[in-house]
Amino acid sequence: MASRFGGISIDCSEDVFDDGVRFWSEALGVAPERPADPTDPYVSLPSASSGVGVEVQRVGAASRYHIDLVADDVEAEAARLEALGAKRVEPVETWWVMRAPTGHLFCVVPAE
Amino acid sequence: MASRFGGISIDCSEDVFDDGVRFWSEALGVAPERPADPTDPYVSLPSASSGVGVEVQRVGAASRYHIDLVADDVEAEAARLEALGAKRVEPVETWWVMRAPTGHLFCVVPAE
Repeated sequence: MASRFGGISIDCSEDVFDDGVRFWSEALGVAPERPADPTDPYVSLPSASSGVGVEVQRVGAASRYHIDLVADDVEAEAARLEALGAKRVEPVETWWVMRAPTGHLFCVVPAE
Repeated sequence: MASRFGGISIDCSEDVFDDGVRFWSEALGVAPERPADPTDPYVSLPSASSGVGVEVQRVGAASRYHIDLVADDVEAEAARLEALGAKRVEPVETWWVMRAPTGHLFCVVPAE
Protein backbone atom coordinates (compact mmCIF):
# COMPACT_ATOMS: atom_id res chain seq x y z
CA MET A 1 0.00 0.00 0.00
CA ALA A 2 1.42 3.33 -0.98
CA SER A 3 0.41 6.74 -2.20
CA ARG A 4 0.01 7.40 -5.88
CA PHE A 5 1.43 10.57 -7.36
CA GLY A 6 -1.61 12.72 -7.97
CA GLY A 7 -0.55 16.09 -9.23
CA ILE A 8 1.34 19.30 -8.88
CA SER A 9 0.10 22.52 -7.37
CA ILE A 10 1.79 25.76 -8.40
CA ASP A 11 1.22 27.70 -5.20
CA CYS A 12 1.25 31.45 -5.80
CA SER A 13 1.38 34.16 -3.18
CA GLU A 14 -1.55 36.61 -3.25
CA ASP A 15 0.41 39.33 -5.04
CA VAL A 16 1.28 37.15 -8.03
CA PHE A 17 -1.78 34.91 -8.19
CA ASP A 18 -3.64 36.59 -11.10
CA ASP A 19 -0.46 36.94 -13.11
CA GLY A 20 0.35 33.37 -12.17
CA VAL A 21 -2.87 31.98 -13.62
CA ARG A 22 -2.17 33.89 -16.83
CA PHE A 23 1.49 32.87 -17.10
CA TRP A 24 1.02 29.19 -16.31
CA SER A 25 -2.04 28.70 -18.50
CA GLU A 26 -0.27 30.38 -21.43
CA ALA A 27 2.95 28.49 -20.78
CA LEU A 28 1.09 25.17 -20.95
CA GLY A 29 -1.30 26.28 -23.66
CA VAL A 30 -4.45 25.37 -21.74
CA ALA A 31 -7.52 27.35 -20.73
CA PRO A 32 -7.70 27.75 -16.96
CA GLU A 33 -10.81 26.35 -15.30
CA ARG A 34 -11.73 29.03 -12.78
CA PRO A 35 -13.98 28.12 -9.87
CA ALA A 36 -17.47 29.64 -9.68
CA ASP A 37 -16.65 30.89 -6.19
CA PRO A 38 -13.96 33.62 -6.49
CA THR A 39 -12.76 32.91 -2.95
CA ASP A 40 -11.94 29.33 -3.97
CA PRO A 41 -8.14 29.32 -4.21
CA TYR A 42 -7.86 26.57 -6.84
CA VAL A 43 -7.66 27.14 -10.58
CA SER A 44 -7.27 23.94 -12.55
CA LEU A 45 -5.03 23.73 -15.62
CA PRO A 46 -6.18 20.59 -17.41
CA SER A 47 -3.07 18.99 -18.78
CA ALA A 48 -3.16 17.75 -22.35
CA SER A 49 -0.17 15.51 -21.82
CA SER A 50 -1.12 13.19 -18.99
CA GLY A 51 -3.57 12.14 -16.34
CA VAL A 52 -1.84 14.20 -13.69
CA GLY A 53 -3.64 17.22 -12.34
CA VAL A 54 -1.97 20.60 -12.60
CA GLU A 55 -3.41 23.58 -10.77
CA VAL A 56 -2.47 27.04 -9.62
CA GLN A 57 -3.34 27.74 -6.01
CA ARG A 58 -3.52 31.07 -4.19
CA VAL A 59 -1.69 30.78 -0.87
CA GLY A 60 -1.01 33.09 2.06
CA ALA A 61 2.67 32.23 1.94
CA ALA A 62 5.64 32.59 -0.36
CA SER A 63 5.24 31.06 -3.81
CA ARG A 64 6.28 27.43 -3.99
CA TYR A 65 5.22 24.12 -5.52
CA HIS A 66 3.63 21.27 -3.63
CA ILE A 67 2.60 17.80 -4.76
CA ASP A 68 -0.49 15.74 -3.97
CA LEU A 69 -0.28 12.08 -3.03
CA VAL A 70 -3.53 10.18 -3.50
CA ALA A 71 -4.53 7.52 -0.99
CA ASP A 72 -7.54 5.24 -0.59
CA ASP A 73 -7.36 5.73 3.20
CA VAL A 74 -5.93 9.17 4.02
CA GLU A 75 -5.56 8.55 7.76
CA ALA A 76 -3.81 5.22 7.33
CA GLU A 77 -1.52 6.65 4.68
CA ALA A 78 -0.67 9.71 6.78
CA ALA A 79 0.27 7.36 9.63
CA ARG A 80 2.39 5.23 7.30
CA LEU A 81 4.19 8.34 6.02
CA GLU A 82 4.75 9.53 9.60
CA ALA A 83 6.46 6.23 10.31
CA LEU A 84 8.72 6.98 7.32
CA GLY A 85 9.71 10.30 8.91
CA ALA A 86 7.13 12.77 7.58
CA LYS A 87 5.36 15.20 9.93
CA ARG A 88 1.71 16.25 9.88
CA VAL A 89 1.41 20.02 9.40
CA GLU A 90 -2.37 20.45 9.46
CA PRO A 91 -5.60 18.77 8.43
CA VAL A 92 -7.60 20.59 5.71
CA GLU A 93 -11.10 19.48 4.73
CA THR A 94 -10.59 15.85 3.63
CA TRP A 95 -6.79 15.81 3.41
CA TRP A 96 -3.59 16.18 5.41
CA VAL A 97 -0.87 18.73 4.74
CA MET A 98 2.43 17.06 5.60
CA ARG A 99 6.15 17.80 5.44
CA ALA A 100 8.59 15.15 4.22
CA PRO A 101 11.84 14.49 6.07
CA THR A 102 13.51 16.16 3.09
CA GLY A 103 11.64 19.38 3.92
CA HIS A 104 9.17 19.15 1.02
CA LEU A 105 5.54 20.12 1.61
CA PHE A 106 2.89 17.74 0.24
CA CYS A 107 -0.74 16.77 0.75
CA VAL A 108 -2.27 13.33 1.21
CA VAL A 109 -5.64 13.52 -0.52
CA PRO A 110 -8.43 10.98 -0.85
CA ALA A 111 -8.96 9.04 -4.07
CA GLU A 112 -12.14 10.28 -5.74
CA MET B 1 2.63 26.05 -29.57
CA ALA B 2 3.18 25.57 -25.90
CA SER B 3 5.09 23.49 -23.44
CA ARG B 4 3.72 20.21 -22.20
CA PHE B 5 3.89 19.38 -18.53
CA GLY B 6 6.63 16.81 -18.33
CA GLY B 7 7.28 15.91 -14.75
CA ILE B 8 8.21 16.81 -11.24
CA SER B 9 11.66 16.79 -9.71
CA ILE B 10 11.98 16.47 -5.96
CA ASP B 11 15.21 18.41 -5.52
CA CYS B 12 17.05 17.38 -2.36
CA SER B 13 19.98 19.14 -0.77
CA GLU B 14 23.13 17.00 -0.39
CA ASP B 15 22.56 16.30 3.30
CA VAL B 16 19.13 14.75 2.79
CA PHE B 17 19.57 13.17 -0.64
CA ASP B 18 20.06 9.51 0.40
CA ASP B 19 17.25 9.72 2.93
CA GLY B 20 15.19 11.47 0.29
CA VAL B 21 15.53 8.67 -2.23
CA ARG B 22 14.45 6.22 0.47
CA PHE B 23 11.52 8.31 1.73
CA TRP B 24 10.08 9.21 -1.66
CA SER B 25 10.44 5.75 -3.17
CA GLU B 26 8.75 4.19 -0.13
CA ALA B 27 6.07 6.88 -0.04
CA LEU B 28 5.17 6.15 -3.66
CA GLY B 29 5.76 2.42 -3.41
CA VAL B 30 8.18 2.26 -6.32
CA ALA B 31 11.73 0.98 -6.67
CA PRO B 32 14.14 3.82 -7.41
CA GLU B 33 16.11 3.54 -10.64
CA ARG B 34 19.59 4.61 -9.65
CA PRO B 35 22.02 5.75 -12.33
CA ALA B 36 25.08 3.64 -13.10
CA ASP B 37 27.24 6.70 -12.52
CA PRO B 38 27.08 7.62 -8.81
CA THR B 39 27.89 11.25 -9.60
CA ASP B 40 24.72 11.47 -11.72
CA PRO B 41 22.31 13.49 -9.58
CA TYR B 42 19.09 11.96 -10.98
CA VAL B 43 17.26 9.00 -9.46
CA SER B 44 14.07 8.15 -11.33
CA LEU B 45 10.94 7.04 -9.49
CA PRO B 46 8.82 5.41 -12.19
CA SER B 47 5.26 6.40 -11.44
CA ALA B 48 2.63 3.69 -11.54
CA SER B 49 -0.19 6.19 -11.85
CA SER B 50 0.58 8.24 -14.92
CA GLY B 51 2.88 9.08 -17.76
CA VAL B 52 4.50 11.88 -15.83
CA GLY B 53 8.09 11.44 -14.76
CA VAL B 54 8.92 11.72 -11.08
CA GLU B 55 12.51 11.89 -9.95
CA VAL B 56 14.61 12.84 -6.97
CA GLN B 57 17.53 15.11 -7.80
CA ARG B 58 20.57 15.95 -5.68
CA VAL B 59 21.13 19.71 -5.74
CA GLY B 60 23.68 22.10 -4.26
CA ALA B 61 20.89 24.27 -2.90
CA ALA B 62 18.06 24.11 -0.39
CA SER B 63 15.51 21.36 -0.99
CA ARG B 64 12.66 22.37 -3.27
CA TYR B 65 10.54 21.03 -6.11
CA HIS B 66 10.86 22.04 -9.73
CA ILE B 67 8.86 21.06 -12.79
CA ASP B 68 9.92 20.21 -16.32
CA LEU B 69 8.19 21.63 -19.36
CA VAL B 70 8.76 19.65 -22.55
CA ALA B 71 9.19 21.47 -25.86
CA ASP B 72 9.88 20.38 -29.43
CA ASP B 73 12.13 23.43 -29.87
CA VAL B 74 13.75 24.40 -26.56
CA GLU B 75 15.21 27.69 -27.78
CA ALA B 76 11.97 28.89 -29.37
CA GLU B 77 9.97 27.88 -26.31
CA ALA B 78 12.41 29.60 -23.93
CA ALA B 79 12.04 32.76 -26.01
CA ARG B 80 8.23 32.47 -25.95
CA LEU B 81 8.26 32.03 -22.16
CA GLU B 82 10.58 35.03 -21.81
CA ALA B 83 8.02 37.09 -23.68
CA LEU B 84 5.48 35.91 -21.09
CA GLY B 85 7.69 37.25 -18.30
CA ALA B 86 9.94 34.33 -17.41
CA LYS B 87 13.70 34.79 -17.02
CA ARG B 88 16.49 32.49 -18.17
CA VAL B 89 18.60 31.34 -15.22
CA GLU B 90 21.16 29.13 -16.95
CA PRO B 91 21.55 26.67 -19.79
CA VAL B 92 22.31 23.07 -18.75
CA GLU B 93 23.22 20.41 -21.31
CA THR B 94 20.21 20.35 -23.66
CA TRP B 95 17.79 22.41 -21.56
CA TRP B 96 17.19 25.82 -20.02
CA VAL B 97 16.67 26.49 -16.33
CA MET B 98 14.18 29.36 -16.07
CA ARG B 99 12.29 31.28 -13.40
CA ALA B 100 8.61 32.12 -13.88
CA PRO B 101 7.28 35.60 -13.08
CA THR B 102 5.63 33.92 -10.08
CA GLY B 103 9.07 33.03 -8.73
CA HIS B 104 8.85 29.31 -9.55
CA LEU B 105 11.91 27.53 -10.93
CA PHE B 106 11.36 25.24 -13.93
CA CYS B 107 13.26 23.68 -16.82
CA VAL B 108 12.42 23.67 -20.51
CA VAL B 109 13.61 20.29 -21.77
CA PRO B 110 13.62 18.78 -25.25
CA ALA B 111 11.04 16.19 -26.28
CA GLU B 112 12.77 12.82 -26.61
